[in-house]
Amino acid sequence: MSVTAPEGFVAAGGSAGIKAGGVPDVAVVATEDGRAVAAAGVFTSNLAAAAPVQVSRAHLEATAGRAAGVILTSGNANAATGAPGRAAASRLCGVVAQGIGARSNEILVCQTGLIGIPFPMTVVEPHLERIVASRRGDPEAGAAAARAIMTTDTVEKVALARGDGITVGAMAKGAAMLAPNMATMLALCTTDAAVDAGMLRTALRAAVDASFNSMTVDGCTSTNDTVLVLASGRGAAPSLDTLTAALREVCVSLAAQMVDDAEGATKVSHVRVTGAESDAAAHRAARQVADSMLVQCSLNGEDPYWGRVVSELGSAGVAFDIDAVSIAYGAVTVCAGGVPVDHDATALAAHLAGRHVEINCDLGLGSGSAAVLGTDLGYGYIDENRTTS
Amino acid sequence: MSVTAPEGFVAAGGSAGIKAGGVPDVAVVATEDGRAVAAAGVFTSNLAAAAPVQVSRAHLEATAGRAAGVILTSGNANAATGAPGRAAASRLCGVVAQGIGARSNEILVCQTGLIGIPFPMTVVEPHLERIVASRRGDPEAGAAAARAIMTTDTVEKVALARGDGITVGAMAKGAAMLAPNMATMLALCTTDAAVDAGMLRTALRAAVDASFNSMTVDGCTSTNDTVLVLASGRGAAPSLDTLTAALREVCVSLAAQMVDDAEGATKVSHVRVTGAESDAAAHRAARQVADSMLVQCSLNGEDPYWGRVVSELGSAGVAFDIDAVSIAYGAVTVCAGGVPVDHDATALAAHLAGRHVEINCDLGLGSGSAAVLGTDLGYGYIDENRTTS
Repeated sequence: MSVTAPEGFVAAGGSAGIKAGGVPDVAVVATEDGRAVAAAGVFTSNLAAAAPVQVSRAHLEATAGRAAGVILTSGNANAATGAPGRAAASRLCGVVAQGIGARSNEILVCQTGLIGIPFPMTVVEPHLERIVASRRGDPEAGAAAARAIMTTDTVEKVALARGDGITVGAMAKGAAMLAPNMATMLALCTTDAAVDAGMLRTALRAAVDASFNSMTVDGCTSTNDTVLVLASGRGAAPSLDTLTAALREVCVSLAAQMVDDAEGATKVSHVRVTGAESDAAAHRAARQVADSMLVQCSLNGEDPYWGRVVSELGSAGVAFDIDAVSIAYGAVTVCAGGVPVDHDATALAAHLAGRHVEINCDLGLGSGSAAVLGTDLGYGYIDENRTTS
Repeated sequence: MSVTAPEGFVAAGGSAGIKAGGVPDVAVVATEDGRAVAAAGVFTSNLAAAAPVQVSRAHLEATAGRAAGVILTSGNANAATGAPGRAAASRLCGVVAQGIGARSNEILVCQTGLIGIPFPMTVVEPHLERIVASRRGDPEAGAAAARAIMTTDTVEKVALARGDGITVGAMAKGAAMLAPNMATMLALCTTDAAVDAGMLRTALRAAVDASFNSMTVDGCTSTNDTVLVLASGRGAAPSLDTLTAALREVCVSLAAQMVDDAEGATKVSHVRVTGAESDAAAHRAARQVADSMLVQCSLNGEDPYWGRVVSELGSAGVAFDIDAVSIAYGAVTVCAGGVPVDHDATALAAHLAGRHVEINCDLGLGSGSAAVLGTDLGYGYIDENRTTS
């Protein structure tokens, strides 16, 4: 599994002194021969985008979607660090480029950690050559890379999809509650598919919408969120549908792993909205429910207070008619036609007591549907986030 | 103080059995002589608006902005209660109308409490005549009305403004964290000003934007939020500016009281954004910061992690240039030109240790400014909201 599963990729993970105590904090993933291949990225919409986001965007633009490698670091976001931060992000790319025999703008960079702390480039640089040189194509090398981007994740997050002659491997680190002081979601996919950058971009955007953009922890948009894909071209030439399906499969898996491993959370919520006027409206309503602090608190307390769900649906900014709405927890309908209905309280309590809670909302207006993954809100989130020390 | 301060109003508070144990749960405020006067309202934008909101809106429309009285109940929101709920809200108006000699559609109604529980009209109705009959114009009657709408508020919330020959009195109950299971903000203003309904509407809208719409606890929009004003006409005929200033003064006071009395909160945040491209942009950015669960957690931990503030400003959907932004807690600037700056850590810690924390953000782009009041996020919010029992 992980990023070395598709033909044509090597990886490494190691410690470069960003984190204390020799904890792995740098991952490098590159093409086997150091040559640039088709690449695409989806980046945070945050206008306070970190230096690595600015540099990676610029590199992908300059190469028209080609990359030979990616360096990922954890422990310092290199965000709100000004010109020195941008220079450091560029330098990280330069060192990796030199190590693998590529050009600087053929390297992409992802970083995660605290915002507003100068990036310790002088500490990191002496370690990089060794880490880059240790890259290999075996599964353990892929696992080492996945471990080096972990923060408070309790398990490494990797995924694999195969089909129609192509393989997609991927690794990620969690978002927000998972790593509250390093509130960033990073994911890197590799594939052996023989595709151009344009198709790769289209497929990645669709996969991200169906996965990372369909989960929420606290609604915050990080300065560093990045999803990348590199395609070695060693495998088959897939259709757009095949490529999208494979990328979606790994991204959906990674998103589920992130929410499931959310530190401080005790529940995973599966909010599904059907009967909306459009899929977009359904997505907006589902996100409003999943993001609601009040709904999240109810989940924490295993309280079937669907009044909060109705209230969020009504304030989601989409077409809504309270007389048409139904709400069920799992298979237990608690509200129909906008009013309470008799239900099996024992079955309801049993569903709410589980780790996975489904909130199924039918707006009764159209055929639009969407699902969003979320969590509950309890003491754990506070504990994780009240201080950065 | 309170709603009986302006000439021409009487009030009462009592218990009608909505809450257990004889706790006051019904307030009535009416004109002294039972005749309708100019009235205006601002209601929740939630499309799942509760029965009382629907009824009050319809009454104000039918009378073109006239009302003789208001009934306010606490303990049951009468939301998601269907046709029986709407009938109950109408009946509440009908009983008060009969008691004071007005028409049914000259009475407005506000309710707050749990959503999705049938309103116990048969329990309530036998008590109403007595409560309505007990109305008086003295200060204690106004205080009794203010107490009857309290939920988890620890003190009654009233305000008074005088100027240029007019008096405005007001009472309110808190929002969200204040009364999490009855997550509604209700406010009723009375004035002796001699004005028509049109001017009253314009002034109320401006006052609400500067007060209740400039505070946040958890970003949730209740099904029942309502602000009303009745003008007896016994005083002077003010200019629009005079009227707006007086209404704004009482509404700003009530909003500050709500945030300050927020159960579960340990801090009040004062987020001020300057240098935005417009006041609207500043307001949006300030709200994004004040609403942020991550920023709220930092406040709880007294952690000066301004990286989260930068991140929220960057994702607020307004013009933003990280190289132009400055951030200060109180008078202690921690970030300028988008990068950290040396600062007095002792002064910073002292400011963060206080109950009131100022987060001053200068976007450095224009002359737009706005301020939003908020709270921290700690265990208290979870405790208040995880169950409704």
